Amino acid sequence: MKNCMVAQSGGPTVAINASLAGVIDGVMRSEMYDTVYGSLNGITGILNDNLLNLTRHMQTHPDDLDRLKITPAMYLGSCRYKLPDYLDDDSSYVYIFRQFENYQVDAFFYIGGNDSMDTVLKLSEYGKKIGSPVRIIGIPKTIDNDLCETDHTPGFGSAAKYIASSLLEIAHDTFIYAVKSVTIVEIMGRDAGWLTAAAALARNEYNTAPHLIYLPEVPFDPEDFLLDVKRLLFERNNVIVAVSEGIRDASGNYISASEQSVDTFGHSQLSGAGKTLEYLVKEKLGVKVRSVEINVLQRCAAHLASKTDLDESFALGQKAVSLSEEGVTASMVTMERLSDAPYQISYGHAEIRSIANEAKSVPREWINDAGNDIEQPLYDYLRPLIQGEVNVTYKNGIPAYMDVSHLSKRP
Amino acid sequence: MKNCMVAQSGGPTVAINASLAGVIDGVMRSEMYDTVYGSLNGITGILNDNLLNLTRHMQTHPDDLDRLKITPAMYLGSCRYKLPDYLDDDSSYVYIFRQFENYQVDAFFYIGGNDSMDTVLKLSEYGKKIGSPVRIIGIPKTIDNDLCETDHTPGFGSAAKYIASSLLEIAHDTFIYAVKSVTIVEIMGRDAGWLTAAAALARNEYNTAPHLIYLPEVPFDPEDFLLDVKRLLFERNNVIVAVSEGIRDASGNYISASEQSVDTFGHSQLSGAGKTLEYLVKEKLGVKVRSVEINVLQRCAAHLASKTDLDESFALGQKAVSLSEEGVTASMVTMERLSDAPYQISYGHAEIRSIANEAKSVPREWINDAGNDIEQPLYDYLRPLIQGEVNVTYKNGIPAYMDVSHLSKRP
Repeated sequence: MKNCMVAQSGGPTVAINASLAGVIDGVMRSEMYDTVYGSLNGITGILNDNLLNLTRHMQTHPDDLDRLKITPAMYLGSCRYKLPDYLDDDSSYVYIFRQFENYQVDAFFYIGGNDSMDTVLKLSEYGKKIGSPVRIIGIPKTIDNDLCETDHTPGFGSAAKYIASSLLEIAHDTFIYAVKSVTIVEIMGRDAGWLTAAAALARNEYNTAPHLIYLPEVPFDPEDFLLDVKRLLFERNNVIVAVSEGIRDASGNYISASEQSVDTFGHSQLSGAGKTLEYLVKEKLGVKVRSVEINVLQRCAAHLASKTDLDESFALGQKAVSLSEEGVTASMVTMERLSDAPYQISYGHAEIRSIANEAKSVPREWINDAGNDIEQPLYDYLRPLIQGEVNVTYKNGIPAYMDVSHLSKRP
Repeated sequence: MKNCMVAQSGGPTVAINASLAGVIDGVMRSEMYDTVYGSLNGITGILNDNLLNLTRHMQTHPDDLDRLKITPAMYLGSCRYKLPDYLDDDSSYVYIFRQFENYQVDAFFYIGGNDSMDTVLKLSEYGKKIGSPVRIIGIPKTIDNDLCETDHTPGFGSAAKYIASSLLEIAHDTFIYAVKSVTIVEIMGRDAGWLTAAAALARNEYNTAPHLIYLPEVPFDPEDFLLDVKRLLFERNNVIVAVSEGIRDASGNYISASEQSVDTFGHSQLSGAGKTLEYLVKEKLGVKVRSVEINVLQRCAAHLASKTDLDESFALGQKAVSLSEEGVTASMVTMERLSDAPYQISYGHAEIRSIANEAKSVPREWINDAGNDIEQPLYDYLRPLIQGEVNVTYKNGIPAYMDVSHLSKRP
């Protein structure tokens, strides 16, 4: 009897459970594998023997596979545990591979971002060293879309759809007053501007917002920014700006509040890029200004997931299982884009060595010369990823997601 | 020939265009009225002769009535114009009623919140004084749900549904880590706690968040708050707090950053209740803490509107038209709740004199003794208002709302 194990790690996305559902579906259809175990809170679940029998769960609750696919964040929980170098300390490695033996695990799937792919790399190398037969395969996910060797990452398309839709709704909200105003929307992505660029997808036949887009790939100049806003305020009443949380000046310093402030209780405070630009506009231009931080909702608002994203995430989970059956290891499953229109991708895999600890930024040529908007190739890249809606069912007026009460128990 | 005029005012909601659609539908079905004109940017459109022929628009674009119903914010734009007392200065009144004559207007409908009902009252009184036959009827809307004489207000149910759903998604996002953390969600409603209370609707079979709820109706004590959080952190890893932007201490001072701070550019900053509590928890309890401001999305996220809310808002628009046909004036259309389960309401009207400049708070007996949660009657009141979903169509991956480009033109 051969079994599988799966875990999730890093920050939440809307699509990471879809990949988990794909793995479970793949194992349940497999003629090689019997059971898939879920490790709670990343690989720490293996270390603490905190495992769920996912095959048995889905056999007794068959409707849960579809519900899992649309449930945000991680059904198995996450961790921020970083494996030490096994040359320094191999005790965790010894224990993890002993657990694989105990549970007759033939394949281990780790769904995560950059840090998780580092874990996949380390486990792969250690496994190779000890001659373990266990296949180690990474399944990508990150709203940041900054993993290499794959056209895009699961979770990104849904976050992009949420951001574009919310930006359109904020535009409707903003356009109602016939007085000059500036609205600054701060979007996640500290080092890569993919998500902030997706705000441009809010533009349609009648909406030109966001009117300015600032990505972390281009140094941010406050003087240029104020000139951009002033010029636009001359043309129109309401100016909407999409800005990455990670914008930096030419010296590489983050544009954010860095000094101390005092509130009701005498605490010092720190503000983000959006709030900082809000105060800059207020002081220098004296116009009505508001900043909106889209915050964690851009990574967990599953009610507005991209169907394309969830379907691909599910397929990548299945693909990881079939690759492991073929003997593939030390790899991450990937997507290759065959064409933009019609949108077509193929699923493959790449060596984990070429992915872990690398990051993918927005190419400079996909950003306009002034560094305040995006170019057509970036639209063409982004647009297919937000297509399609997911049929979320509601119960008592709120979305009906998977029960995750097992995560809330006190350890 | 008799015509109607309609305008919108105050802050945006998801339902205010549904009431506009109801007015248009009512006029188009009327045997008494011919045309309904829309005044752009509240009553300032009448003063500036900035009017749209809505009947003609819908006759030539019949699909737009359904699209208007689900479009957020105001198709006609808003204003913050406050009419002077006509005893001090009646020039605007003279001009408005002359415009009513010019356009053969027999009924004027004003969709708005508290300030807009003040305008309805003033126009009604002036009209009575000069013996004008024009019926003046208010149609309520406000996400704050603080208007008197109506069981609840259009726009509130959709905002409540968005808040409850988002809170559930934030709970999924938060539960994934097996480390102690506190998440503070700041919700709109400076003087009334209805919206913050709606966060409780996120609770279901597996989710107990929000674990604490603080409304502006009860004085906020920072020491009690810290004790509440500490107690809960002993019981569970992740504590989620819903807090109104309007919480005040026993002396009536807002719990927010009030003193100056310095950011990258040397500006002073001001923070809200959520950010302030975040820093309080960080300093006093030393635990991982994050604050999330739901911000304008709670009033404009039409993709997650409550069907109950939009249907009622539409019906109130129709009701206003039929009441005006019966000769009713100086009134606001209202909803009376006949029962919670099954949920039943009837539509009526109340004298505008008893509504304008009054506000409705959450009754103290619907809040628990400790002032950190809500009681069952408030659940029973809130739950029906978020029921049902709206079939929003999507185009190119984003919601397909009404073209509002006419609002963006430079005045």
